[in-house]
Amino acid sequence: MASMSELTLRPIGYVRTAYDEGGDVPTQATGNAGETAEIVVRDDLAPGLRGLESFDYAWLLSWFDRSEEPASLDVVPHPLRDTGRTFGVFATRSPERPNPLGLSLVRILGIEGPRVRFAGVDLLDRTPVLDLKPYAPGVDTPPEGTDIRTGWIGELGR
Amino acid sequence: MASMSELTLRPIGYVRTAYDEGGDVPTQATGNAGETAEIVVRDDLAPGLRGLESFDYAWLLSWFDRSEEPASLDVVPHPLRDTGRTFGVFATRSPERPNPLGLSLVRILGIEGPRVRFAGVDLLDRTPVLDLKPYAPGVDTPPEGTDIRTGWIGELGR
Repeated sequence: MASMSELTLRPIGYVRTAYDEGGDVPTQATGNAGETAEIVVRDDLAPGLRGLESFDYAWLLSWFDRSEEPASLDVVPHPLRDTGRTFGVFATRSPERPNPLGLSLVRILGIEGPRVRFAGVDLLDRTPVLDLKPYAPGVDTPPEGTDIRTGWIGELGR
Repeated sequence: MASMSELTLRPIGYVRTAYDEGGDVPTQATGNAGETAEIVVRDDLAPGLRGLESFDYAWLLSWFDRSEEPASLDVVPHPLRDTGRTFGVFATRSPERPNPLGLSLVRILGIEGPRVRFAGVDLLDRTPVLDLKPYAPGVDTPPEGTDIRTGWIGELGR
């Protein structure tokens, strides 16, 4: 089937953050909301940012370029690393996954030309950025609100 | 810079939906929560779904394989099509974007082998699926809750 063949994408830019090594980097953007960093978009795409400054939050889709290929589809989620409990990789947010796509909810602080200052940092320095999308609760939250099942994450009380 | 070169990914599966043509398909999954469809994951990756059934919601990352290259970085958002108002593509959820990546919040109804039944359909039939990630409010909603600015979407009352 044609749609199952390889697909190619090109980064729209990259992030500049304080994290050079994987072990140091926070595992979720919303869990590190106090720290700020910068997205640098390609100059030819900077006009595409117009209007994003009117949103407080955006999705930052990224490419985990320094994650290793998953050795197994069974993953121990980072918050459960002391327990050894495993789940299928698609039931986790592990950066080691078949397609190393990252999804971070970041707070937009300001945009100047191709530079987007944001808060909520969970990415290594120079991680490629694939897309930015505006966040809106009506689109990005379940109609039921927070009264939903969240598997092993719910057991952690998050 | 190495990280700005082309990146390659391979679909983890595809969706089966009732929509063959772009004009018919709803523009947001959460706006079409009553309709159900199916994700078919590659057989070799089906074990990676283990544990996802304990989550009510998941992010479905997809590849808009029938979207055209954006002719311009100025986009009229679909809900504003009668107004002609434009915004930069990264301030919209338009499927026509530099990297045609889709982000749909879907409700998990059941998983059997490589098949994931879900509610919330905004994708054309046979759209390639790139990733599935569990949804959790503590990770995927702003700490401020809904009291945030949402640009032109907020003007629509969503």
